[in-house]
Amino acid sequence: MNELTKPLGALGNLEEIVIRLAGMTGNVMPDIGRKTMVVFCGDHGVTEEGVSAYPSDVTGLMIHNFCKGGAAVNVLSRRAGADVKVVDVGSRLKKLPACVVDRKVRLGTANMAVGPAMEREEAEEAIAIGITIAQELKTEGVQLAGVGEMGIGNTTATSAVASALTGMSVDKLVGRGTGIDDVMLRQKVKVIRKSLAVNQPNKADAIDVLAKVGGLELAAMTGFVLGAASVRLPVVIDGVISTVAAFVAMALSSDVKKYLFASHLSVEPAHRILLDQLGLEPLIDAKMRLGEGSGAVLSFPLFDSAVAVAREMATFADLGL
Amino acid sequence: MNELTKPLGALGNLEEIVIRLAGMTGNVMPDIGRKTMVVFCGDHGVTEEGVSAYPSDVTGLMIHNFCKGGAAVNVLSRRAGADVKVVDVGSRLKKLPACVVDRKVRLGTANMAVGPAMEREEAEEAIAIGITIAQELKTEGVQLAGVGEMGIGNTTATSAVASALTGMSVDKLVGRGTGIDDVMLRQKVKVIRKSLAVNQPNKADAIDVLAKVGGLELAAMTGFVLGAASVRLPVVIDGVISTVAAFVAMALSSDVKKYLFASHLSVEPAHRILLDQLGLEPLIDAKMRLGEGSGAVLSFPLFDSAVAVAREMATFADLGL
Repeated sequence: MNELTKPLGALGNLEEIVIRLAGMTGNVMPDIGRKTMVVFCGDHGVTEEGVSAYPSDVTGLMIHNFCKGGAAVNVLSRRAGADVKVVDVGSRLKKLPACVVDRKVRLGTANMAVGPAMEREEAEEAIAIGITIAQELKTEGVQLAGVGEMGIGNTTATSAVASALTGMSVDKLVGRGTGIDDVMLRQKVKVIRKSLAVNQPNKADAIDVLAKVGGLELAAMTGFVLGAASVRLPVVIDGVISTVAAFVAMALSSDVKKYLFASHLSVEPAHRILLDQLGLEPLIDAKMRLGEGSGAVLSFPLFDSAVAVAREMATFADLGL
Repeated sequence: MNELTKPLGALGNLEEIVIRLAGMTGNVMPDIGRKTMVVFCGDHGVTEEGVSAYPSDVTGLMIHNFCKGGAAVNVLSRRAGADVKVVDVGSRLKKLPACVVDRKVRLGTANMAVGPAMEREEAEEAIAIGITIAQELKTEGVQLAGVGEMGIGNTTATSAVASALTGMSVDKLVGRGTGIDDVMLRQKVKVIRKSLAVNQPNKADAIDVLAKVGGLELAAMTGFVLGAASVRLPVVIDGVISTVAAFVAMALSSDVKKYLFASHLSVEPAHRILLDQLGLEPLIDAKMRLGEGSGAVLSFPLFDSAVAVAREMATFADLGL
C-alpha cells in the first residue's frame, strides 16, 4: 500500500482491511470475489414473557421471505454480489422452504426465565453445525463470509449472554430490539435479570452461558466464527447478536479475532461496548437495527473497494517518481 | 419504507437517504443510476511557508494521475459506477491533460500569510464556475454528484476559513493534512493565525473570507454546492475541505442544506465540528484523510443499497400480512 499514489496511511481502515486480508489469505493481492452471507435462524422460548415487538411466528415468515428474495439481506446481497445461505438451527417452523439448509437442533429454545434455554449438548451440537458450515463454505471457494441471524427474541438472549460474560449490568446492555416501548423495555430488563438469577450461568464456561441464557442461532454463529478461523476464512460480523457470538467464540479461542471484521455500529447499546472489548472498529454508522446480516452485507462493497484500491491504483513509480 | 418487511425505521439512515432523495427529486422511488464525482483542483501560495508534507508540484502530478485513471478516486469511482470529472480552477499546471475541464481562474493563489490569497472578483469567478458545472451535470442527466478536490496546501486554507467563519480557535481545527509531523503542525497553526491577522477576513461576508484566506478550488466547490441546490441535484460531500465549502455555501444560502449528504468522517479535527454545525451525519468512519472525493465516492454504493432496498424489498402485503 505504501507505493500507491497517496500519502502514507491516508486511506485509513481501507488499507488496514487489505493488509489484514493479505495476512489471513497469504496473498498480498487478496481476492474476495466470492462472498456469502450466512443467516442462522432460531426461535426463543423467552418470547412468552413479552419481550419483543413481534411474535415468534415472524421468524418463520421471514425465513419464507429470505427464500423468496424479498428481505433486506437479499436485496443488499444482490447489490453486493454475495450469495445468501439460510441455515435453520432452531426455528419453530416445521416445514422449511427449499432454500433453507435444515440443521434444526430443536423447535426453538425453552423459556430461559424459568429454566435453561437448552441442554448443554444441544448448544454443543449447534456450535458444531456452525463450524461445519464455515468449513464447507471455504471448501466451496468462498473468500469472504458475513454472519447474520433471524430469531424473534434474540436481542433478549444476546443481552443475557453479554451480561453473563462481561459482568456488566443488564440495563447498560439492553436495547429496544425491533422497537419496543419503555414499558416493554423495563419488562425485558426484568426478564433478563430473572433468567440470569434462575440459571446462574458460569461466566468461566462460555458454553454453559450459551446453553442456559443463549440461543440456538447464537450458538451456531459462535461455531461459525470458530470454524471460519480454523480454515482462515475472513468473517464480517453484523450487529449486536453476531458480535456477542464473536465474543463467545473469543472466550473459547482467542485466535478467532484475527479473522474477524466489524461492519457497522448498530443502535443497540451493547454493540459498541462489545466491539470495543473485541478491539474491532465498525466502518459504517447508519443507526441500523435490523439484523439478518444487513449491516455486514452493506459493508461488503467497502471491502471490495479496499481491495480494488490495492489492485488498481497507480504507484509513484508509475508517475515517474 | 413503512410497508417493507422490517421493523419500522430499522434500516436507520438508509431509510432517511431514500426519503430525502424522494423529497429532492419528487420521485418516491428515486433513481441515482447516473453518478458523477467532480474533483476541483487548485494550488495554494501558502505552501511557501512550509505547511504541507508535499510540494505544490504534486497537485499537477495528481491531475495527470486522474486523467490516467490511477488515483484512488478513479479506482473507487469505477467500483461505484460513477464518472469522474476533473475541473481545474487554479492549479499551477500550465499544460493540462486532455481529460481536464479547463476553467483556470489563475495559476494558484497568492501566499495568504502575506496578503489576500486572491482578489474578490477571482473568488466570485471560481464560485460562478462551480455553479455552472453543477447545472451542466444536471442538464446531462446526472442524478447524484460527489464533490472532492486536489490542491496541496488546501487543508491550511480550509482551517483558516473554518476559523474565520466559526470564530473557533485555529488549534482546535487544524490537522495533519497529508501527514505532517509535530514541528510542521505548529508551523501550520502559526501560519494560519498570521494569515487571519494579516487579512482580517470579514466573518459576515463569506466571499471575503474565501478570497482572503480560502482557495480557488474551495470557492468552486462552494459554487458547486450552490448550483446543485439551484437545480435540485443531490450532492455528497467528502472530507473537511468539501465540508468547509458546504459551510460557506450555507452561509450564502441556507437552502443548500436540503441537497447535501455527508459521506465519511475524516481524521481532520475540523470535520466533525463542521458536520455537527451543518447537522449532517457521516455514514462511514474509516479514518481516511486522502481527499480527491475518495470518501464521498466510497459511500456511493451505500446510497445505491438504500435505493435498492426501497425498490426491491417485499412488503408485508407480499407475505400475506
